[in-house]
This record gives sequence, structure tokens and C-alpha cells, in this order.
Amino acid sequence: MPFIEEVLGHWPEALEEILALPVRWNPERFAFWLRQDLPFVEALYRYQVELLREAPQAHRAPLLHALVATVEELDWLLAQGADPQGEVHPVRREYIALLEEMALLPYPYRLVLFYFMNRLFLEAWSAHVAEGGPWQELSEHWSAPEFQAVLFDLEVMAQGLASGLDPGLLRDYLGRILEMEKRTWSLLL
Amino acid sequence: MPFIEEVLGHWPEALEEILALPVRWNPERFAFWLRQDLPFVEALYRYQVELLREAPQAHRAPLLHALVATVEELDWLLAQGADPQGEVHPVRREYIALLEEMALLPYPYRLVLFYFMNRLFLEAWSAHVAEGGPWQELSEHWSAPEFQAVLFDLEVMAQGLASGLDPGLLRDYLGRILEMEKRTWSLLL
Repeated sequence: MPFIEEVLGHWPEALEEILALPVRWNPERFAFWLRQDLPFVEALYRYQVELLREAPQAHRAPLLHALVATVEELDWLLAQGADPQGEVHPVRREYIALLEEMALLPYPYRLVLFYFMNRLFLEAWSAHVAEGGPWQELSEHWSAPEFQAVLFDLEVMAQGLASGLDPGLLRDYLGRILEMEKRTWSLLL
Repeated sequence: MPFIEEVLGHWPEALEEILALPVRWNPERFAFWLRQDLPFVEALYRYQVELLREAPQAHRAPLLHALVATVEELDWLLAQGADPQGEVHPVRREYIALLEEMALLPYPYRLVLFYFMNRLFLEAWSAHVAEGGPWQELSEHWSAPEFQAVLFDLEVMAQGLASGLDPGLLRDYLGRILEMEKRTWSLLL
């Protein structure tokens, strides 16, 4: 996908920064950090439902499968004791506000940015998360062929829309997503 | 589910009327009637997405599976040559307007009415549609254990919400749904 890679030229560098964060690996701290993610995943659920409202027929099935994955992740977080009424960490709150701002963009931007959030998160997850532990389920979920197929579909859909978009606007939002991912993972430093 | 059956006391009678309609069975006419259903199923898609926006976590997975079924039905209708730009029959238009009116009701009403629409449509379908034909796929889809499980989940969810609702309001809308189903099937007389 030359276009997307071109537009997002500073992706590799900012991503490398995230992947290189010297996260201190501690299973209990990590499980706490993960449970704290509940309000963000809930905001992601709303973002995805808004995508479905405007999605053309060809996009709907992949978006639904991605949403099933999000709902399963919420189930998992709740089963692990995440508190829906708990106080929301300021960094998560800021990331949620960014999502809500992005939800006001036209559909093609929202779709392309949704693809990037998924790809980015999974790359960071693979770099930082040790095998084993109660989150093994989540890891298996994301590496399963079904979810890889969803990601591939999202990539194709994003590529199909990207050429009509303003590269500067996309780059700005991508930069802000990368910044929020960096700050989120930095909570584990 | 005593409550729902009680509230909707006139259901059996009105349903019997629909099941007893002397539909003239002609495969080509039926296929045409089915393709004409595209704009209604599209409206149902929107209705279901609106449900997802407000659904509590426990309702989301079943609603998503129901929505996957709707998207597959749209795919099937398009593959059969249904025309998204085609003129919409006045009876379908009226049914769509009813759906749009129902979409303004509070979530519990919308969920209960969605369950009834599914149940009612499937009973009428089983009564009127001959085996074989290109729509065999759709029939198999709806009789598959996965979809039966979704219907069962919807029933349990509807029952869980129904006792807090105004029986008169529910009954009014149910009456209007039954009337629209009757008029829709009557296009085949």
C-alpha cells in the first residue's frame, strides 16, 4: 500500500519510539493497567458503532467482526474485575477525548484512522507484552486467523479510501494517536 | 414468558390472519417481492445500529449477531439483483416510516419490538414460503442453530425489559407491525 505508507512517512520513527519504551514488566501492574483500559475500549465501541451507521455495504461485515472483537474484549476486562464506575486516568481520558473528536470527521477519515489504531496497538502489544498471564486469551484472540483477516480487510478498505483524503489532516491525527499510544504505554515505565 | 404473551393478547388472532392469507405461490413473483424488500432491510440495518448505540454490554453480542444476519441478507438480496436505486413500493415505504418512528422510542421498547418483528416475520415466512428456490439459502440461514440462538437471546432480553414498559404503547406498536406485515404479505395475493 504505497499511498498510505507515503502519507504517513513519520510513522516508522514514532512507532519505533513506542516499541523501544523500556517498559518495566510486572504482571500485576500490567493487569491493573489493562483493567484501567475499560473506559477507552468502551469509547472505541461507540466509535465503531458510529462507523457502522455510515458504512457502505461492502464495509459492514468486516466492521461488525471488528466490533465483535471489541465487545469480547469488554467482556474479558469486566471478567477480570475492571470497574465501569471507576475513576478514569487522565491519560485515558485524553485519549477518549481524541476519539470523540475523531468521531466528528467524515467517514473515510474515521475508517482509515480506525485501521491505524488497530495496527499500531497490535504492534505495540506484540513488542511489550510477555507471553502467559491471564491476558494470554486476548493475545490469542488478536493473533487468531479470524482477527488477522479482519485487519487485512480493514487495510484494504482504508487503502481504497485513502487516496481521496487530505494527507496533512490524516498525518496530524496519526501523530496525535501515536502520541497518545506513547503516553498510554509510558504509564508502565 | 407470561408477561409478554399477556400484554400482547391479540397477537395470536392477528398472526393467524397473516398465516391464513391465501398467498398465490409463484416462485418468480416471490423472488421479485423479495428483491423489493431491499430498502426495508436497509432500514432495519439502521434500526439495529441505533439499538447498538444504547445497548448495555450484556445485549451487545446477540445484537451484533442479529446484525450480521441482516448484512448477509442484504448481500444476498444484492446478489439476486435487488436495485438499491429502485423505486420503493408504497407499502414498503410505509413500513420503513413505521421503523423510523419506532427508532425514536426509548431503548427498551425498541428492543422488545425488534424481537417481535423477528419472531413474527419468521412465523409468516415458515407459513408461506415453499421449500427450494434461490431463497433456500435464506431459509436455511434462519433455521440454523446459530440464528435460533440469537432469537432465543433476544427473547430473554425482551422478557427482561418488558415488565417495566407501558403495555398499551407496546400493544399499539405491535398492532401496527402486524398490520404492516399483513399488507406486505398481501402483495402476494
